[in-house]
Amino acid sequence: MKNLDEIFNSKTIAVIGASAKPGTAGNDYLKVLTNFRDSSDIYPVNPNYEKIMGLKTYSSVLEVPEEVDLAYVLVPAKITPRVIEDCIEKGVKGIVVMSGGFSELGNEELEQKIASSVRKSGTRMVGPNCMGVYCPSAGVTFPTVIPGLKFPREGGKVSLISQSGGVAEYYVGLLAERGGRISKLVSTGNEADIKFTEYLKYLADDDETEVIAGYVEQIREGKNFLETTRKLAEKKPIVLWKVGRKEAAKRAASSHTGALAGSSKVYSGVFKQTGVTEAHSLDELIDYATTFSCLEPKAIEKVGIVTVPGGLGVDISDACEEEEIEIPLLSDGLQKRLRDSLPPYTQVMNPVDLTFAALENPDLLKKSIEIMGDSKEIDIIVVSDTGETIRSITPTLKECREKSEIPIAMVIPTLSILDKKTKENIRILTKAGIPIYPTSQGFAKSMNALTFYH
Amino acid sequence: MKNLDEIFNSKTIAVIGASAKPGTAGNDYLKVLTNFRDSSDIYPVNPNYEKIMGLKTYSSVLEVPEEVDLAYVLVPAKITPRVIEDCIEKGVKGIVVMSGGFSELGNEELEQKIASSVRKSGTRMVGPNCMGVYCPSAGVTFPTVIPGLKFPREGGKVSLISQSGGVAEYYVGLLAERGGRISKLVSTGNEADIKFTEYLKYLADDDETEVIAGYVEQIREGKNFLETTRKLAEKKPIVLWKVGRKEAAKRAASSHTGALAGSSKVYSGVFKQTGVTEAHSLDELIDYATTFSCLEPKAIEKVGIVTVPGGLGVDISDACEEEEIEIPLLSDGLQKRLRDSLPPYTQVMNPVDLTFAALENPDLLKKSIEIMGDSKEIDIIVVSDTGETIRSITPTLKECREKSEIPIAMVIPTLSILDKKTKENIRILTKAGIPIYPTSQGFAKSMNALTFYH
Repeated sequence: MKNLDEIFNSKTIAVIGASAKPGTAGNDYLKVLTNFRDSSDIYPVNPNYEKIMGLKTYSSVLEVPEEVDLAYVLVPAKITPRVIEDCIEKGVKGIVVMSGGFSELGNEELEQKIASSVRKSGTRMVGPNCMGVYCPSAGVTFPTVIPGLKFPREGGKVSLISQSGGVAEYYVGLLAERGGRISKLVSTGNEADIKFTEYLKYLADDDETEVIAGYVEQIREGKNFLETTRKLAEKKPIVLWKVGRKEAAKRAASSHTGALAGSSKVYSGVFKQTGVTEAHSLDELIDYATTFSCLEPKAIEKVGIVTVPGGLGVDISDACEEEEIEIPLLSDGLQKRLRDSLPPYTQVMNPVDLTFAALENPDLLKKSIEIMGDSKEIDIIVVSDTGETIRSITPTLKECREKSEIPIAMVIPTLSILDKKTKENIRILTKAGIPIYPTSQGFAKSMNALTFYH
Repeated sequence: MKNLDEIFNSKTIAVIGASAKPGTAGNDYLKVLTNFRDSSDIYPVNPNYEKIMGLKTYSSVLEVPEEVDLAYVLVPAKITPRVIEDCIEKGVKGIVVMSGGFSELGNEELEQKIASSVRKSGTRMVGPNCMGVYCPSAGVTFPTVIPGLKFPREGGKVSLISQSGGVAEYYVGLLAERGGRISKLVSTGNEADIKFTEYLKYLADDDETEVIAGYVEQIREGKNFLETTRKLAEKKPIVLWKVGRKEAAKRAASSHTGALAGSSKVYSGVFKQTGVTEAHSLDELIDYATTFSCLEPKAIEKVGIVTVPGGLGVDISDACEEEEIEIPLLSDGLQKRLRDSLPPYTQVMNPVDLTFAALENPDLLKKSIEIMGDSKEIDIIVVSDTGETIRSITPTLKECREKSEIPIAMVIPTLSILDKKTKENIRILTKAGIPIYPTSQGFAKSMNALTFYH
């Protein structure tokens, strides 16, 4: 695992195929990387330039005077074998081959050639046909193409292994919208050398990773995967989204990364058996990773709902009961305790509806959570808010989460349209261990995922 | 229906309970309204002020020198009966009682009192306990509380009847994020006078409404509703989201607007029988309204997928096949025609994967759509994009949608995190008749909804 750690936590990076020409991949990536980390340990390689972006540029990786931990390769496929030989000779620890044009376009032979080169050496390879790695704590990142998306510099608890570079990229953005941050991310590409299961093993042992999420088109070493995950899922939660479940999807997957997709039922069976949480959509992959990064595994059978204005208590109740999770009518004693602490126009049966009272007096929310939490009548409290109250209740919720034993979650259907100031609270809440869900359905399914993992 | 039309398209509005005190409902609403429409036909009413926000203020609605189409009532519940008597005496056409404190808090008698007053008169009442109406083409709006949300001034094709003011508000915001705009919206509150079914009838006859969406906690006149919708669903698509399907949800609904929620199965049966499209979540309510506002009813059995980078073709294929919609392997002839027009590294089996080619040359997208559209092998083309290409392909897609007979839809999973410039294209696309879905599941389910309505 030494090499993999050096790839994610690389201290020196060569960018082979770096370019001064705007709009090229070699230019884009160098720009992204120099903006993200200290430039003094970045070495552009391109025989046509002496300097790019003010950095001394080398005609070959062999000329770089320092040790190179990681080499990003952005040259055309046919030149790749020679570049890789150079990297091996240089003793580079890891190579990320971003270039496409290998098995995904039928060029199996070329791919085998580079794979067998690295296999004979001490060097390891990510890709080819991939976006590489992102590890914010080490200042390693990869080029983003989605307009408006910048990878956060702040690291988090979720690591992602993705067999699609595109999915990897927007996963980071959509997770960040929920307040989640990434520990380590790899876009694995064609997996000619390092395969999905090996990343999984590495991340299971990585102290900075608390949850592993994966986007899977195909597992290339089925038996190895089965044996590995059985051991790993005990260590930390693994959430996998397996696509290509049906005929046409397999066609699409095959054209995308040269992988052959297996049957849906086989994978679902394996996941269940090995304790892997299966996601069936992008939303679920985000929901479940958010859940496991915020909440301890626990059986969630009874949910207490607290709402501020917006009428979402009904929807959360529907969604929970659809997933066979109970919204118990609170006991007379508990209702009385709530009644004594809350204004007369609030509702205390469950959902507890605070209406506008929580906006003017966040302390009412605190009291409700404390009283419900102490009762042991429910396993979790979910607070629903459509935006107006978020800023005023964030400190209260954070305090409750820290002091009280009862876990807290939030459903915020308006998440994507909130203004910047309100959105800043989302990160505070998630960091405090309060997962945020944009849909009631996502919350309810996540509670079942938490129960399953428990 | 005359009164209802005068409520939505009101030319003169009295705001009874208007206030100069910031933070009060009477201040907030007057501010929102004066920002939204010409102030010269707004009449604040409050005996404690001579002027509010520079507008002459009357001590009673009876003193307003002009005819009053609509009176917003924001005074405490106990004063409401007297204010309503004044409105009736004045000959106000419609009253919106925003104030709460009626049947939803057990004060049935007070609610019956105001209901029977208006029933004996020529005046009609929206609410009580509601947010009122929003009709951008007439400059009528209602107070928004979600931070960052401004109701668009531009009108659209979707009308919404909502039994929750909160849901009404964030529906407008979330629909706008997809490029959709509202024709007319009403938050119906306790429905003491005008009930859900009457709004439905009005909107079915309204030329500016092409799709009717509804958030339903309870239908108060079941038989009337059944007979009405049977006739109406033939005129235009009706999409209803019925919440409170289960026990706890009924408790929540009951506390929220004083309504009693009916059994889930009964409603589903009625919807199916009457041709109403049933939504099971907020997302579906938005998805289906977007669909019907962009696409003609049609049976969608076979889908053609075109993708740019991002790997989403696999996910759309999965989602369609999960919903029993076919992603047919294109015929040899059609594949050959595509192959002849596209670069060699693209895929033509279906999904047609254009990779980065579409970014550099949007004409390739146009050719793909034309060739696939002409073939009659598919019923719709769905284009998937994660953001990078949206700006360059928008004009092309708009042109294809206008010139070609084949309907076009888009799946954009990154919708919520796109930058402002890219987001501007969303409205252009939706306006051109291309519905936007953030999830593949939403697209697939919507195609079944289109088939069902057809």
